[in-house]
Amino acid sequence: MTGSADFGFGTQIRKSPFFEATVRWGARAFSVYNHMYIPRDFGDPEQNFWNLVNDAILCDVAVERQVEIAGPDAARFVQMLIPRDLSGMAVGQCKYVVITNAAGGILNDPILLRLEENRFWLSLADSDMLLWAQGVAVFAGMDVSIHEPDVSPLQLQGPKSGEVMKALFGESIMDLRYYWLREVELDGIPLVVSRTGWSSELGYEFYLRDGARGDELWERIMAAGAPLGLKPGHTSAIRRIEGAMLSYHADADIHTNPYELGLDRLVNLDMEAEFIGKAALARIRDEGVTRRQVGLVIEGAPLDGPNTTFWPVRKRGNAVGKVTSAIHSPRLEQNIALAMVDAECAELRTVLEVDAVSGPLRATVVERPFFDPRKTLALA
Amino acid sequence: MTGSADFGFGTQIRKSPFFEATVRWGARAFSVYNHMYIPRDFGDPEQNFWNLVNDAILCDVAVERQVEIAGPDAARFVQMLIPRDLSGMAVGQCKYVVITNAAGGILNDPILLRLEENRFWLSLADSDMLLWAQGVAVFAGMDVSIHEPDVSPLQLQGPKSGEVMKALFGESIMDLRYYWLREVELDGIPLVVSRTGWSSELGYEFYLRDGARGDELWERIMAAGAPLGLKPGHTSAIRRIEGAMLSYHADADIHTNPYELGLDRLVNLDMEAEFIGKAALARIRDEGVTRRQVGLVIEGAPLDGPNTTFWPVRKRGNAVGKVTSAIHSPRLEQNIALAMVDAECAELRTVLEVDAVSGPLRATVVERPFFDPRKTLALA
Repeated sequence: MTGSADFGFGTQIRKSPFFEATVRWGARAFSVYNHMYIPRDFGDPEQNFWNLVNDAILCDVAVERQVEIAGPDAARFVQMLIPRDLSGMAVGQCKYVVITNAAGGILNDPILLRLEENRFWLSLADSDMLLWAQGVAVFAGMDVSIHEPDVSPLQLQGPKSGEVMKALFGESIMDLRYYWLREVELDGIPLVVSRTGWSSELGYEFYLRDGARGDELWERIMAAGAPLGLKPGHTSAIRRIEGAMLSYHADADIHTNPYELGLDRLVNLDMEAEFIGKAALARIRDEGVTRRQVGLVIEGAPLDGPNTTFWPVRKRGNAVGKVTSAIHSPRLEQNIALAMVDAECAELRTVLEVDAVSGPLRATVVERPFFDPRKTLALA
Repeated sequence: MTGSADFGFGTQIRKSPFFEATVRWGARAFSVYNHMYIPRDFGDPEQNFWNLVNDAILCDVAVERQVEIAGPDAARFVQMLIPRDLSGMAVGQCKYVVITNAAGGILNDPILLRLEENRFWLSLADSDMLLWAQGVAVFAGMDVSIHEPDVSPLQLQGPKSGEVMKALFGESIMDLRYYWLREVELDGIPLVVSRTGWSSELGYEFYLRDGARGDELWERIMAAGAPLGLKPGHTSAIRRIEGAMLSYHADADIHTNPYELGLDRLVNLDMEAEFIGKAALARIRDEGVTRRQVGLVIEGAPLDGPNTTFWPVRKRGNAVGKVTSAIHSPRLEQNIALAMVDAECAELRTVLEVDAVSGPLRATVVERPFFDPRKTLALA
C-alpha cells in the first residue's frame, strides 16, 4: 500500500480523521492496527527517529481506539478488568495497565484515563477490547455502559514538544504532569490532552473528540510547531525498542503473562479487590515463570530493518526462545532486541545465539531499557 | 506493501502458514485482517474474477481465524452467543450465523462448524471473537474452554473446484453436501474440509490443522489443480458484491442489526433458548427498522476500483444513507453497490443519487443478490 490510489480494499479498513492530512504531509505507506490505517513511512525511518529524539514529531495514532466505560459501577468494573490497584487513581490521572484474561494472559496493554469519577477511557493497543469489556459485562451484573466514542489521538513527541504545547495553549499547559490529562479546546476543537506517548521521550497526546475536525487540528498543530522544528512522523520502532516498550502481538500476546515481561508492578495480588486473572496470576507468581523477556545486544553488521519473523534463540545449539522485536539503533550503534527466553537463560551477560535471516549471530543478555535519558551521561 | 522486503512492520502482524507460498505464486500486495496479512493482489483483479467464475482459484484465507468452544456446556454456550436456532444442527454441519451484542448489534458474521457434540469452531470475519467469547464466559457460569486452535483455512472456489477435490480425495468427496464438513488427511496432513466459501460459487474450504505444513498443503493442491485450470488467487470483491455477501466493517458493524441487513432468517426470537441480544432484537423487530440495506445499480462510466470511502446517498438532495461497497461488475457490465439507506428509500426501483469521488451519479434500488447462478437464463 503505497499511496491513496492503492487503498483498493474498499471500506473494510477505516481511515483516520487525519488520513488525508498525513498523505498531504508525505505519508508513503500505511499499516493496519485496530481495523484502521496507520501511517508507517514518511521516507527514511532513521530520519524519523532523529526527528523524534532531537526535535519533535506529530504522529497519527487514531488507531489507538478508545473504549469508554461509564455508569454507576464503572470504577468497580474497570478494576475488575485490571490487575493493577486503581484505588488511589484520581480523576485526571492516566495509568499504564495490562488487561488479563482468566488464565492471566495479556489481552491488551492500554493507557487508562480517568475522566470523571465514573467515566474512564482505555486507550488501546491492537485488540478489540470493546468486545472483551462488553462480553465481560453481559453477566457481570454491574451497571455500566461501554462503547467506542468518537475520539482519535494524535501524538506530539520529542524534546521540543513542550515548546509546541506552549505555542498552542500558553504557559499554563506547562504544569500538566507526567501521566495526567486535561480537557481543553483549541480554536473550539474539543480535546483531551495528556502527557503520555509511545516514545520514551517528552510527549503529549491529543485526543480529538470530533472526527470531522481532524484535518483542522493537524494543520493547527503543524502551523504552530513547524517553526519550532516539528516534523510529521510516525511511531518509531527504533525508539520504542530502545525504551523497551511493548508492541502487542509482537512482544506480548494472550499466551504471555505480566510476570514473564517483568511487569510485576502492574499486578497487585494483595489488594482486596477481585480482578479477572487473579487466581491464575497468584499461581504463576507462586510457581515462578518458565520464561522471561530479556534485552539482547546482537553482534554483526547493522540489521537493515526490523525482524519480520520471530527469530529462534539458541544456547549451545538448543532452542531456548525467540526474538520478538529487533532493530539497529543508530544512536547506540548496536543491534538491540527484545526476546522471550527460558528463565534460566535470562541472567545478564548470558551469551546466546540468534538465527537471524542472514544466519546465526552471537547475542548477549543486557539490561532493558537499552536507552534511558537519565543514563545519558553514563553512556557518553 | 509490495513485496517481502517491504513488510517492515516487525512481527506485530502475523504471517499465514501459506504466506511464503503465496509470495512464490505471485502475490504482490497484502492487506491485514484479524491481525494477519492476507494476499489481495495477484495482478489484475478482473482476471482473478474470471479465474474464479470460469475455472477455480486457491485463496489464502488463514485470516479467518477459528475460535474453538469445547466442554460440557459448549452447545448451550454457543447458542447463547448466536440468535439463530441451533437445536437442529448436526455434528458435521456448518451454519452461517451472526453474533450480536446485548444491543442487537452485529459483532461478527462467522461460519459455525460443529465438529463434535460439544466442540465447535467459529470461522471468523474481522473481529476478535476470541475476546468476546472469553469475556462472556467469565461470569456465564458455564463449563467451557475457549481458545484459538492452530487452524488456518484455504479456499478452493469456482466451478472446477469439484474436479480438483476429486483429484485430491477421490470420488468419495463428491457426496460432501453444501455446508457440511469432513475430517480428512491429505498425505498425512490433518485437515477439515467443508463445502463453504466466500464467493457464491461452488467451493470448498481446507482447514489446515498443523501450521508447519502450510507450504506443503498449498503445493499439493496446486499440483493437483493446475492441470484442471486452478490458479492462485484472492477473495474477489467483484464476485462477493454480485452475491451480496457481507464484508464486516464495510457493510455491517457493531451499529448494524440483522434486520437492517435483511438477515431475519438468522434470528429466531421464538425459540425458547436465551441468547445475547434477544430482548433488543425483539424490540427492533416490533418497532421496525429505520434503515435498510439495499442493492444499487449506479449509472455512469465503469468504476475503476471499489469505493474507498462511504459515499453519501441522497434523495432529491437530502442525505438518506451511504454506499458501503461499490464496484464495477465486468460480467453484468454495471456498477453495483450495497448501501444502507433510510427505510422509506428501500423500495425496489427507487431512484437515488450517489456522491461518488467523480461526482454525483444516478442510482436505482434493485434486488440482491445481483447475480444468482439460478437466474443465469433470465439474465441471458
